Amino acid sequence: MSHGIELIRRHVAEYIEQRDGHKANWQDICLTAGASNGIKHVLELFCNKVDCKPTGIMIPIPQYPLYSATLTEFGIGHIRYYLDEDKGWALDINELERSFTDGSKTHAVRAIVVINPGNPTGQVLKRGNIEDIIKFAHKKNLLIFADEVYQANVYDKDSKFFSFKKVMTELGAPYSCCALASFMSISKGYTGECGLRGGWMELCNMDPKVQEHLYKAMSAMLCPPTIGQIVCDCVAKTPCCGEPSYELWEKERCAVLDSLKERSEMIVQAFNGMKGFKCNKVQGAMYAFPRIELSSKAVEAAKAAGKAPDVFYAFKLLEDCGICIVPGSGFGQKPGTYHFRTTILPQKPLLKEMLDTFQKFHQKFSEQYP
Amino acid sequence: MSHGIELIRRHVAEYIEQRDGHKANWQDICLTAGASNGIKHVLELFCNKVDCKPTGIMIPIPQYPLYSATLTEFGIGHIRYYLDEDKGWALDINELERSFTDGSKTHAVRAIVVINPGNPTGQVLKRGNIEDIIKFAHKKNLLIFADEVYQANVYDKDSKFFSFKKVMTELGAPYSCCALASFMSISKGYTGECGLRGGWMELCNMDPKVQEHLYKAMSAMLCPPTIGQIVCDCVAKTPCCGEPSYELWEKERCAVLDSLKERSEMIVQAFNGMKGFKCNKVQGAMYAFPRIELSSKAVEAAKAAGKAPDVFYAFKLLEDCGICIVPGSGFGQKPGTYHFRTTILPQKPLLKEMLDTFQKFHQKFSEQYP
Repeated sequence: MSHGIELIRRHVAEYIEQRDGHKANWQDICLTAGASNGIKHVLELFCNKVDCKPTGIMIPIPQYPLYSATLTEFGIGHIRYYLDEDKGWALDINELERSFTDGSKTHAVRAIVVINPGNPTGQVLKRGNIEDIIKFAHKKNLLIFADEVYQANVYDKDSKFFSFKKVMTELGAPYSCCALASFMSISKGYTGECGLRGGWMELCNMDPKVQEHLYKAMSAMLCPPTIGQIVCDCVAKTPCCGEPSYELWEKERCAVLDSLKERSEMIVQAFNGMKGFKCNKVQGAMYAFPRIELSSKAVEAAKAAGKAPDVFYAFKLLEDCGICIVPGSGFGQKPGTYHFRTTILPQKPLLKEMLDTFQKFHQKFSEQYP
Repeated sequence: MSHGIELIRRHVAEYIEQRDGHKANWQDICLTAGASNGIKHVLELFCNKVDCKPTGIMIPIPQYPLYSATLTEFGIGHIRYYLDEDKGWALDINELERSFTDGSKTHAVRAIVVINPGNPTGQVLKRGNIEDIIKFAHKKNLLIFADEVYQANVYDKDSKFFSFKKVMTELGAPYSCCALASFMSISKGYTGECGLRGGWMELCNMDPKVQEHLYKAMSAMLCPPTIGQIVCDCVAKTPCCGEPSYELWEKERCAVLDSLKERSEMIVQAFNGMKGFKCNKVQGAMYAFPRIELSSKAVEAAKAAGKAPDVFYAFKLLEDCGICIVPGSGFGQKPGTYHFRTTILPQKPLLKEMLDTFQKFHQKFSEQYP
């Protein structure tokens, strides 16, 4: 089955119904070879011009670079909106309006990408924020790409994951009629089966003719990997209380998520304890995205080396102590600010060692470029 | 690893060296999520215009519809060349010249697709024919897409599989410098692991900058499924004589291939014994592609039903006896001729039953539309 085994699509629909408390239609769920694969297929729908204007899609800055890479591949304009670092990387509606207005000068803006929980920024959007985004998308007639692959990865006690589907449905008409594509993956959560390539997408309120074309285009690649599909089934239909494997499953699930939570706190605390660093809480997902102050001496040295300042810093760190971070310029950041992404995935003892080494490196670096 | 696990890429290079007797560079081998996935990535390289002309790619008619679908998706012109049914579906160089000349009027023709062993046509190209195709491609400066996924599926005792890489290398300069992309799959051969999505491609003489871009674009999809990669390893590095699993493996491999060979003969014999059918030998691959005469009465009835004549026939067959064939118009065929594709995959007793039922249906159909 090109769009996934029917039984598994039905189980995914049940998972979504249980998660949101609202009906999900299994025919609108399509299994994919990982979330990236589904995202790419839906992005491709937008590669035509509209009234002679090239199309554009709104993407967050910072963003997971799959979006910028794929938009470039398909010749679709990047309509950038900045996340609000001072408000825990929330989406600011005025900034969305600014981005849309600017983008519309050159492009037919057709869709908006929202990553929640955030990658690389680790925020979990508040329900009110999601409502505002949906109202904005409805007003501008945008399809919403809800990248919700980290929906099981929420650590902060004051945060809760709300799916765009749920919030949209509960807002009622006319907002419940927004076009929405939501993406999920087996590579995240407590599963972490990246190499098996599995995921799904749910399409809501998509024009049936468009959906038919999308399904047809996807069928040229025959089917998503069967093993990835089976893991989708495991993610969607977890053991129930009373079933033989329930206790072990629950124990392992909690252990993975609790440990991630601990590590997310550890990493934020460590960076905020270092001079020149400022790190928002990791409310969810798998990354910290600290901001770092670089002295004018460091910026000059980077320039002389032909590198962006954050890239220069990342290379120094790698060369000096073998720690690999991804510089913020790979995700985009406000001009003049510097960040990097680091994961919370290393096990605790290794993470502790890494943070100690990092601290020493930074001290040395600051002395070298005061 | 976005292009496959290094060890497996090295094993694939060794497989190719053993197959061809010539050096293969593991860095030029890239593991993919099935051959289709690799083919699609390489086709995408051609979606730009050249000197204001849209690009075009030569594809065989009949052809596996992945090519026509993907070319349409990327806005690349279909430059069709007809396979020569009377010569066992060989490629006729005059026809290639005709196709190139016609195509060049409207398109910048940049590449040629050759499927060997053929899908849906089941031919295995003779070495001399391959030499002529390479010389033609060299003269016209075309990249060769060698779709060689059925390389292990050769049944005819007078046929032998020669890879384009081998023939090109042995032709020597300047032909050995042709740009070539060859594709392989774990879904065919004696393995038949379609659902795991695995395959590889070997790139020869590709401009290093182009290859770098291709590898970069592919890395946006992270990696091919690991299980599919592991099966690639099994296909590339088979048990050696003397190893514990060698005998069982050899026995099973031969049993699968011998049985396919038997079935390929059975199906051709059955169709050639039926009035109005003419079926070339199935030299390789997994399909028969018989030609069928349809009476003017049948053609009229199809027209009245709003269907192509071969589609009309296929629907009647399906509705009357539950046998599913793919009408030739799905693959392309010379105007005024009618074909269909049927696989040699059903097990012998089922295949025999199917052929008997088919024969009775055809007799009835011929009486109904004399």
